[in-house]
Order: sequence, then C-alpha cells, then structure tokens
Amino acid sequence: MMNYKKHVVIIGGGFGGLNAAIKLSKSDVQVTLIDKRNFHLFQPLLYQVASGALSPADISFPLRAIFKNKENVNIINGSVKDIDFSNKNISVDYYNINYDYLIIATGTESNYYGNNNWENFSTGLKTIENATTLRNKILTAFEKAELETDVDKKRKLLTFAIIGGGPAGVEMAGAIAELSKHTLSCDFRNIDPSQSQIILIEGGSRILPMYPESLSSKAENNLKELGVKILTNHFVNNITEDFVELKFNNNLSEIASKTIIWAAGVKAESLSKIIEKKINLKLDNASRVIVNQNCSLSSNPEVFIIGDLANFKDDKNTILPGVAPVAIQQGKYVSKYILNEINGKTNKSFKYLDKGSLSVIGRKSAVAFRGNLKFFGLSAWLVWLFVHLLYLIGFENRVLVAIQWAFNYFTYNRSARLIANSSK
Amino acid sequence: MMNYKKHVVIIGGGFGGLNAAIKLSKSDVQVTLIDKRNFHLFQPLLYQVASGALSPADISFPLRAIFKNKENVNIINGSVKDIDFSNKNISVDYYNINYDYLIIATGTESNYYGNNNWENFSTGLKTIENATTLRNKILTAFEKAELETDVDKKRKLLTFAIIGGGPAGVEMAGAIAELSKHTLSCDFRNIDPSQSQIILIEGGSRILPMYPESLSSKAENNLKELGVKILTNHFVNNITEDFVELKFNNNLSEIASKTIIWAAGVKAESLSKIIEKKINLKLDNASRVIVNQNCSLSSNPEVFIIGDLANFKDDKNTILPGVAPVAIQQGKYVSKYILNEINGKTNKSFKYLDKGSLSVIGRKSAVAFRGNLKFFGLSAWLVWLFVHLLYLIGFENRVLVAIQWAFNYFTYNRSARLIANSSK
Repeated sequence: MMNYKKHVVIIGGGFGGLNAAIKLSKSDVQVTLIDKRNFHLFQPLLYQVASGALSPADISFPLRAIFKNKENVNIINGSVKDIDFSNKNISVDYYNINYDYLIIATGTESNYYGNNNWENFSTGLKTIENATTLRNKILTAFEKAELETDVDKKRKLLTFAIIGGGPAGVEMAGAIAELSKHTLSCDFRNIDPSQSQIILIEGGSRILPMYPESLSSKAENNLKELGVKILTNHFVNNITEDFVELKFNNNLSEIASKTIIWAAGVKAESLSKIIEKKINLKLDNASRVIVNQNCSLSSNPEVFIIGDLANFKDDKNTILPGVAPVAIQQGKYVSKYILNEINGKTNKSFKYLDKGSLSVIGRKSAVAFRGNLKFFGLSAWLVWLFVHLLYLIGFENRVLVAIQWAFNYFTYNRSARLIANSSK
Repeated sequence: MMNYKKHVVIIGGGFGGLNAAIKLSKSDVQVTLIDKRNFHLFQPLLYQVASGALSPADISFPLRAIFKNKENVNIINGSVKDIDFSNKNISVDYYNINYDYLIIATGTESNYYGNNNWENFSTGLKTIENATTLRNKILTAFEKAELETDVDKKRKLLTFAIIGGGPAGVEMAGAIAELSKHTLSCDFRNIDPSQSQIILIEGGSRILPMYPESLSSKAENNLKELGVKILTNHFVNNITEDFVELKFNNNLSEIASKTIIWAAGVKAESLSKIIEKKINLKLDNASRVIVNQNCSLSSNPEVFIIGDLANFKDDKNTILPGVAPVAIQQGKYVSKYILNEINGKTNKSFKYLDKGSLSVIGRKSAVAFRGNLKFFGLSAWLVWLFVHLLYLIGFENRVLVAIQWAFNYFTYNRSARLIANSSK
C-alpha cells in the first residue's frame, strides 16, 4: 500500500466532482469519491432519454469503471449524512471518513418554490428516473389516446405542457415535437400524433433569456415551425393531475394535460442545508453556498464548493451560471489548487473561461453564441453534435451514441421507446 | 378504408404472436395485435441485460414501429380481461373486439410450484423488469460488500445462487462469473470480486438435461473453469431473504445469499385459466392448453394456441419444448393455415423442424447440437453470436448490439451497469 501525502474527499460525481477526481487521480494524493449513484450522468442529454432516442446506459458512466486502474481513488456508493467540519470527518451511511481537503459538488435539484405538491403532478428533468418516468408518461399518453373515445380526454392526453423556457425546456419541447410529428406519425390508427399540442410556458418575456435576443427569436421561430406553441409572460399558478393553471396579466387560464414537465427552476441540493447549519453561514436565495474567489469557504479554507452548489461571483460581480462548463473548470481548478498548496506552490483565483452556450431545437437546428459570435440552424446543430460527442466519457459510448444519432437523423427513429417500470 | 376479408386477433407479441402478425400483415386480412407491453422482447438475451452488458432497449422492439407501414395491422396496448368464445368477442380493458380467427400466444411466467412467497426473495428471468431488478441487486451487492466489515455479511453479499440448470440458469451463471472475475476485477478496493461464490443449483442429475450428456459435461467443465460451483440432485426446500435451503439425499443445508435467481421453471400465463374455464377443457400440469395437430382447439377450430402456452404433441407423442423456434414456426404456420382456409385451400398438420439447441457459457464458449451434430467451445459460441444477431429485429439494433458485443469481448466491459430504479 502506497503512503499518500494527503486525503482529498469529493462528494458528488457530476461534472465538477468527476473532473476534480480525474485530475487528482493522476497525482500522489489519496482520493475518495462519494456519490449516491454508481454512475456519472451526462445530464445535457437527459431529454434524449426522456424522448426515447437514447437508453439510460448511453449517458451513464459507471464511476468505478472510470477509475478502475487508479489505485489511489476509492469510490463510495452512499449518502452523506453529516459533516463534522471542525474534526474534518464525514458520516456516509454507517461509516466515518476523515479528510484533509473536502470538495463538495452535489449540484441542484428541481425547485418548486414551496409548492411541493406540484412535484406529484409534474416530472422534473434531473435524474435518470425522471427521464424514464417521462418517457413512460409520454408514450403511455399516446397509447391511451389511441383507445380513448371521449374527445376531451383524448385532447388532454395529447397535450404536453413544458414549464420553463430555458435550454432544458426548449430542448424537451423540440424533442416531443419531433417524436409526435415524425417518429410516431404512422404508428397509430385512431389518432394522428402530429395533431398533439406541445406548449412551452415561460414566465419571462422571451425563451432562452440568457441568450442574445436575436437567438431567442430564432429559437422561437424554429420551435413554431415544429408546431410548438410558446406562451411567454405566463406564470404557473397551480398544477393538478389534469391541468396546469396559468396567470397572464392577472387573468387565470387552464391547460388540460396529462403530461406536465417541470423545467422551471433548480435549487441547491440538500447538503447545502447541512453546510449552512454546521458552519453557520448564510446561503443565497437558491440555497447555494457563497464561496471565495478560490471556491473555498472563508471559515474553512480546506473546504471547496464547486459547480451548481456554489454561488461564485466573478470579477464583474455576476454569479456564474449553473452550467456544466463552470463545474468542469472549477473541478479542475480546485484540484490543481489543492496540489499546489500541498507542494508549496502559489495559487491564483478561479477565472471562468466562457466557451459559449448551445441549445438544440429538434433534429437539425440549434442556437449558439460565444461572446459576440452567434450561430443558428444547421451549423449550430453540428457544433452541438460535435461538442456533446466530445464530452461524452468513453470511446464505446461515443461510438454507440453517434450511431444512434445517425440512425435517428436519417430515419426519424427513436428505438428506446419501451414503456417499462421506472421510479413511479 | 380498405374492406378486409376477415379479422384475425392475436393476443401476445412474443415470438409466436409477432411472427403470426408479420406473415398476416402481408395479406388482405385485418389484424389486431394485443399486448400488455408496447414492445416485443427478445427474451434469449435478457440475461445480458441482467448482467449489465446490454440496455433494455437493445432487446426491446416497439411493436408499433415494426408495423408502422402496415395499414391492416392495428396494435392495442392493453390487457385481455375476458374472452367470449361463443360470440367471438374479446374484452380488452374497457373495449370489446370481435374476431373471425383468434391466435393466443401469451407464453409463460415463472413457476414457484405453489411456494409463492419465494417470489419475494428471488428474481425470475422473464421480463425486462426482472432483468433490471437483477442488475440492480447484483451491482448493489458488490457496492454493499465493499463497505461491509462483518465477514459473514460480506460473504453473503458476494454469494449468488442461481436455481435451475437449464439454458437460462447456465447462461446467467456464466454471465455473473464473467462480471465478477473480469469486468469488476479492478473496480473495488476492499473486496476482490473474483472471490465471489456463484452457485448453480439443479434438481436433476446434470445441467442442461435436454442436451446430449457429453455436452452437459462440457458445459459443466466450462462453468467450473469460470469458477461456478455446480450442485446437481439438489432440490430447493425454502427461500428466505437471507438464504436458500437445499435438500440433497434427505439432508438439508443452507446457502447464505442476498441474490437468489429463479430460473427453475415456468407455467402457462394466466390467460390459460380463462380458456380452461370458458371452454371447459383440461389444462396439462404446467397449465398449458392441449391443442390439435393444427394448433387449434377441438371445440373452437377458429381459435389457435401457439408457443409456450400450447401443449403440442408431435408424431412421436413428445410435447414440443417451450423454446423460441417452436413459437416462431407455429406463428408462421397458423397464419398460413388461416389464409389457406380463407382462400379455400387445403392445409397440412404442423411439423416442427428442429434446427438444434444452443446455450452460451461465458465469453467465448457455448454448447450446441442439431440432431447428431454437436458443437462446443468457440465454434458453438460463434454460431450463437450469428444466430442471435440474425434473429434480432431491426438493422439498427443488430448494429448496436454487435458493437456492444465486440467491445465487451475485447475489453470485458459491461457498460450498462447503472443502478437505477426498477420494478422493486
């Protein structure tokens, strides 16, 4: 057994934690990576699982497989119950682990802004189970509509309401539109899936609010061409089993739908509450932990919070967005920071290099920008394809996903269309 | 809308029902295919899903996609509640469907021989949910063993008991052995997965009892080389959450195990009970329906029972085995029979053409026979590979599965290793 210099514990195997672990795995520190799940999830493609284009395993990478040849990396499949920051000790299920450095990267969960019962009638887009639940719901809605004789019930089954006009909502709306207009178009005898209503609901004045205005309207046009109805300035007032109630200019209206998708907001994962309680610090209004310019806590310089869980303000005093590139860069930064500190080298503050933003809309259209450069249409879609294949971990998955996409592209096929048991 | 000659209803989209529907879809009869699931399942590869080598969608084919361009085929995703044979009418959920001809092909389910509580502590190998439940159980057992400090508990977690030495049990035992000895060998730090105990339990005097004796012993040797322990002449006396109790020469013994797999027996699916009650006929001891030489019922010549649900005696008075080739050939036969009858042509009795049997044992070994020809080792494995790829429906799935297999072969990889929510 090797004698390692220091022990770094990482909580969370998402983009931030995984990249921190990969960098540290090549050094002479001991690494323990803790995750509730046994796999890293490539979240940007979750909507492709939800729409039956990919299988869960295509976007899930067993953490143990990634580190199988890294003797200094230990993986624990468990839940963190408590953290004792003064004694540098973590309780995972029934076990205790000591650390020299701690990286917390547990990300976010769906935020229903206090309306927790809405969770029972809508499905988020955060976990593999969300995606398979949604896939079951969408496909079951078509199956039920095929047998339904009541016109109103049929219409309700064929109405899909997507709440939230950010990238996740836009991508999901586009995918359902493709599914109903193309993939399923010849599959039924009593219904015409292309007559489905797909409604994208956004509280702000335009979809993709973080994009330049010109790209928002490009995306809007593309979605409309696919048959998606867009409601901006509409707020959700209530969600029930049978409808979503909307508020627009103080007027209430209802959309009857059996498939309601929640892509409206996220909040920091529950671990932030433990951090708040234990070190007596104030979280921001999305329950994120406010961190220093090196991603650490002022009170505990050996503790780093990265990715979506962190509230990191850049030099323009803007909070960095909860996107994969920020988490990846922070993961790499803090691991380098820790190694520098161990080796007595000096460190700089974290600087985020914005490589641009990308959202896909359906089969061969996307919008993207980087600084003042804007892309849209086929060229943006090709960039999207390339970037996503590049970031998928593992050669096998890249090859398989590329082949599936090629098939899906040329045949409008979505082969992962089984209705099977999921979380619900 | 075309005016079809006759209406043929098929219950069950397994090998028998699917092949009947494919043949009839090319004729001028109207076809209604009813299945509880929205996909055809390629059951021979279920154990590959259970062992994390393939994803559910790789072996599941959406029924609607298969018949999307066949206007005369209507698919109903629902459960048959009742059949009124005198009025030729079927109740599916809340709907009624009339038929001129009826083909019933609902297959089998796990048979616990009256010990229904055993079902709570063991997992069968019949459905996609069985396979994903098993995948979760096997992978979770390794994860828990990694953290377990009690030696006995650790041993119990690393013991896998497979009950039933037929092809399904043999293939499952081989797959778990490969998984633990190769795929996971470098994945853990506190346990050595290759020290797992894999125990195959068979009541008869040898495994693969339907194979020639020389192949049974070849298979036994191959499994032993993979580290599988084989117990023949051992009967299951009890199954609990923590062990399986065995009887051998009137002596009782226990195998402590958290993963108990039931591959010991099947019985006809519950629809046979409705048939028994409604037409007052006697089922055989596996609840199968006894059929004529043309697969029909004596009392109802327009009703055909095919595949595993049927008890069909060949001209040597041997009941045909419950295997895919029998179901496929009967499916094709009865659809041709019906078309001949409609067109006033004469018909012959059903004759089963035995193309041989194949079982795979691990990564590059199998046993096979056809008449007096016997194959084993690599050559049998290559035949197995070819036959299974050939019978997979859809070019896309064939390409994807072939690529996965190539990867798995060269790298011992099993990428579909996620622990996610399943039926339990």
